[in-house]
Amino acid sequence: MKIGIVGLGLIGGSIALDLRQLPGYTLLGVSRRPETCQQAVARGVVDDASTEFALLSAADVVFLCPPLGAIAQTVEALLPHLTPKTVLTDVGSVKQPIVEAIAPLWKNFVGGHPMAGTADSGLDAAQKDLFVNRAYVLTPIDTTPPEAVETVAGIARSLRAHVYQCDPSAHDQAVAWISHLPVMVSSSLIAACLQESDATILELAKTFASSGFRDTSRVGGGNPELGLMMAKYNQQALLRSLQTYRNQLDHTIALIEQADWNALETRLQQTQQTRPSFVD
Amino acid sequence: MKIGIVGLGLIGGSIALDLRQLPGYTLLGVSRRPETCQQAVARGVVDDASTEFALLSAADVVFLCPPLGAIAQTVEALLPHLTPKTVLTDVGSVKQPIVEAIAPLWKNFVGGHPMAGTADSGLDAAQKDLFVNRAYVLTPIDTTPPEAVETVAGIARSLRAHVYQCDPSAHDQAVAWISHLPVMVSSSLIAACLQESDATILELAKTFASSGFRDTSRVGGGNPELGLMMAKYNQQALLRSLQTYRNQLDHTIALIEQADWNALETRLQQTQQTRPSFVD
Repeated sequence: MKIGIVGLGLIGGSIALDLRQLPGYTLLGVSRRPETCQQAVARGVVDDASTEFALLSAADVVFLCPPLGAIAQTVEALLPHLTPKTVLTDVGSVKQPIVEAIAPLWKNFVGGHPMAGTADSGLDAAQKDLFVNRAYVLTPIDTTPPEAVETVAGIARSLRAHVYQCDPSAHDQAVAWISHLPVMVSSSLIAACLQESDATILELAKTFASSGFRDTSRVGGGNPELGLMMAKYNQQALLRSLQTYRNQLDHTIALIEQADWNALETRLQQTQQTRPSFVD
Repeated sequence: MKIGIVGLGLIGGSIALDLRQLPGYTLLGVSRRPETCQQAVARGVVDDASTEFALLSAADVVFLCPPLGAIAQTVEALLPHLTPKTVLTDVGSVKQPIVEAIAPLWKNFVGGHPMAGTADSGLDAAQKDLFVNRAYVLTPIDTTPPEAVETVAGIARSLRAHVYQCDPSAHDQAVAWISHLPVMVSSSLIAACLQESDATILELAKTFASSGFRDTSRVGGGNPELGLMMAKYNQQALLRSLQTYRNQLDHTIALIEQADWNALETRLQQTQQTRPSFVD
């Protein structure tokens, strides 16, 4: 099976690295930068690479792996080079706007989101086994051919990921809760601490900050471009989560203002008891 | 030097374990529970232990290590048994209410906060080297004898902790920022996710939750008693931090509502750039 990878960064490069180890796959990479193409071939990430989409004219499946903001223009340039039976899929972390943009243009399109990553980006960050035991979400819609879904699902399973299927909008709201909301909550925590106007207290806070602050602030101190993309492309779902969060925060503040310690304890017990239903 | 430890839990037990390895210290433990006293002696945590404060009549220094809520009544019962030169110190994670309560009753009192802990509690959780390279904050006030401060600082240094001194109120506001606020922010995150009324989306969120949610929700899913104590004993400083946090959250929400992506990117860049001034 000929697999095209458009965008040889962390995700595209890692998909290629894994598939190339498996029998029956030929990997074809496309990158805007000639150096990335040379590097990808030299490192054995792909069998062949080019800056031209023409390389993908014989591809059976093409993975779209550019940054979220570049997907629309990439698709426009790519489609004229594909044969109609080519299955197209993407790896974007937001699905509804991407599915809405591409599905009308390409029948065999399957929205996808391999939920793996590292703090790094680029081909140098690509690694083997990145998707092992991670969720790989597919978001077919009514018009998506089941064979196209099964083709992408089969590849995802060969990456040893766990394949899930859901509506694009359900995906976007779910990741708003567990991925995009935490970034804004965590970033606001750092921003709040910086508001401390007493320099002595701010210095003490910086000195005393330890594992609790480290963990709670981690994603808020992450890659700003990723956070921006989440907000930009998942704006409505994120705002819905943020408004709910704000109400819950207000409730917490009210309990503390009213010194309603019984209710606060009950609430803290609930969050302690329910967290394991999300993460170990 | 005879060291009394009142409350043989995680902190008291760990202080005793370390000091007992050093030359010149005799460790005397007091616990309400006879079994804890027996266990502490059997495990070699202390040289002698009793349920009676009379054991501490010859102590040079006494560490108060009961839960925050039990400190006042413990002090009342303890003081009649001490000689006036005994240096009294505590290990509570909030300082102003404790210093205000004890300083008028005991001249040689030094508020203290060894900033170390684990998710576990009790004597079984006590461990060696718990305080190595951790902050140990002392909060003397105008009336605190410098010799008493130096005595406690010397012991803290022998635990290989880094000793800091500041006002009780500055301590409380600093820990509100980096320890108590994160707990409420994180707990509210879990509470918000549970508000999702679409069962399919909630189930997907639980399935997709990964490292970002794990870290951001960790302290909100911690020991409810600890969170409650923070709110109860550090109410005003915590509320001040929470109000500032809420304003910063509102600002984040407004930028996303207004689709002011430049300002949001600048903000996320700022929080990325400033986080390392708090934690590695």
